[in-house]
Amino acid sequence: MKRKITLKQIARELDVSISTVSKALRNSPEISADTKQKVQAFAKLYNYRPNNIALSLKNRKTNTIGIIIPEIVHHFFSKVIRGVELVANKRGYNVIIGLSNESFSKEVINMEMLANGSIDGFILSISKETLQLQDYHHFNETMSQGMPIVMFDRVVSDINCDKVIVNDFGGAKSAVEKLITNGCKSIALITTKDYVSVGKLRTQGYMDALNDAGFELESELILKLDDKLDYEVHLDALENEIEHLFKSNKSVDGVFAVNELYALSAMKVARKLGLEIPKDIQVIGFTDGVLSKHSTPSLTTVSQHAQVMGEKAADLLINRLETEHNENEDETYQTVVIETDLIERKSTK
Amino acid sequence: MKRKITLKQIARELDVSISTVSKALRNSPEISADTKQKVQAFAKLYNYRPNNIALSLKNRKTNTIGIIIPEIVHHFFSKVIRGVELVANKRGYNVIIGLSNESFSKEVINMEMLANGSIDGFILSISKETLQLQDYHHFNETMSQGMPIVMFDRVVSDINCDKVIVNDFGGAKSAVEKLITNGCKSIALITTKDYVSVGKLRTQGYMDALNDAGFELESELILKLDDKLDYEVHLDALENEIEHLFKSNKSVDGVFAVNELYALSAMKVARKLGLEIPKDIQVIGFTDGVLSKHSTPSLTTVSQHAQVMGEKAADLLINRLETEHNENEDETYQTVVIETDLIERKSTK
Repeated sequence: MKRKITLKQIARELDVSISTVSKALRNSPEISADTKQKVQAFAKLYNYRPNNIALSLKNRKTNTIGIIIPEIVHHFFSKVIRGVELVANKRGYNVIIGLSNESFSKEVINMEMLANGSIDGFILSISKETLQLQDYHHFNETMSQGMPIVMFDRVVSDINCDKVIVNDFGGAKSAVEKLITNGCKSIALITTKDYVSVGKLRTQGYMDALNDAGFELESELILKLDDKLDYEVHLDALENEIEHLFKSNKSVDGVFAVNELYALSAMKVARKLGLEIPKDIQVIGFTDGVLSKHSTPSLTTVSQHAQVMGEKAADLLINRLETEHNENEDETYQTVVIETDLIERKSTK
Repeated sequence: MKRKITLKQIARELDVSISTVSKALRNSPEISADTKQKVQAFAKLYNYRPNNIALSLKNRKTNTIGIIIPEIVHHFFSKVIRGVELVANKRGYNVIIGLSNESFSKEVINMEMLANGSIDGFILSISKETLQLQDYHHFNETMSQGMPIVMFDRVVSDINCDKVIVNDFGGAKSAVEKLITNGCKSIALITTKDYVSVGKLRTQGYMDALNDAGFELESELILKLDDKLDYEVHLDALENEIEHLFKSNKSVDGVFAVNELYALSAMKVARKLGLEIPKDIQVIGFTDGVLSKHSTPSLTTVSQHAQVMGEKAADLLINRLETEHNENEDETYQTVVIETDLIERKSTK
């Protein structure tokens, strides 16, 4: 793919400021006819498409961070936003939020809208549809125009930017190790299909823990649910799937679920089948949700420290915004891995 | 308070278009020197403060709605946003969200930021601090500059705009009537201090139901909590308050709580004191939360239909944005009252 020429590059080539290029392209009366002609000819020659991001970007610093999240009715994302707000406000930045609703086109539209002069940079988590399509052009274009992006939780290795992720693999592994230590002999996994990276990593953590302990991997103990179905609405469908899992595998005495709703539903189904928790079956979830501590029994979970993720993402973005970038150096990016904690409650021995 | 002159009024006085006034004030080369002089002199004479809202507003329609909510980690507000998104997207609008974090100054800053050319109108719920200060100038100024506001849930009668509210009074009253019908003789209320209008109305609904049934109002049965304390963090403090209420009033056999967390904590404390739910004590909450249906026992609640509120608010705002306003007519505003439903679960007989 041919790289698009940027304002920055035009400015460098013609030895004028970025602001001059921007103004010349908008035909500003502030710029001499001679310079305008030169800039416009150069831009045309290199197929420069005037981009609102770049045009507005250099005009003003907004001191505002744009967040794009896939879903609003989700405690994890709410907590991340709280973390971003905390650090942003402390460091003199505002925050505005756009939603992709797990849709690729909404993600693109919302990024364009916010990038259009409203914000200095993005903190975002990729929508499921984008991950499925593997189309990341909007992220790369935004960054090539000089607007930094920090990604959190749902990230992909194809994109070069600062990232904040949870140790999904390690968190899942330690949860399953806990079940093994507690005496479980037959441990089921309730997870999502693999296209969301975090689901995949948690599944790998489960398998690695079993492998290390010398357990045989039984594929019938792994329930992969299609999380495009909103199970909060279709709770019955979720419970039926889990009931089928338990009935087909009567020996199951441990469950690791990759989210809170799956874990709570597993407990509900287990109780319905006459199993006592944690005596007959032990359950661990993966979440920072509110349900875990209020459920009966309260749920042992892997805590992701969502608020810390948000704080860290905000620091990474603001540091980048406030550091003068040297044109001749390649950018170097960081990936910050937030370690998980196992919060033990009453659903495990 | 002297009313600020608006772009609209300057345009009318000088018999030019709003766009001309806006451009003249920004010293645009498109406007003749003569007109510029006239507009600028007039604006100076009437102390016109150029306001970014008005300047940018007439330049373009953004087809974007700005939402300002007091708190992000809150299922009710998330559901309202989902409703706004649903209708907005159907009608060709985007949505961006700003948070006040219950702070007056953050509310003002976020409104200014979004009004600055990013959006066409606001949907918002007032912060607690603003309600306490009773300072509503930022709402009135925004509207006087031609940017419409629709308020939901937390509204005040001092402000003339479209509103969407829950029937908090009626919802609370019917909940308490349910407890009375179910045989409760001593009904406690767990509520917030009165400065948030919805808390006040729910308290009035409680009192009205008791009064209608010929019950005597006992002030020691009303627990008013300071909701500036984050009880999700300070759960112990909340439970201690409720334990004190129950221990000082051993006859209590019914509880109406104005939110989900208070209701769940009441159930937890009751169980701890050896009371059976619903045999010894019946509990009803007020919420659209996720905890109610997953708690043990599941909680009977007053459903606010948060998503419907969001849908209705979006329709009101977009209708107003898409209706040509006649200069000579006064605006007429609507208040839409969403009726509640009592969702019966296992915490009542």
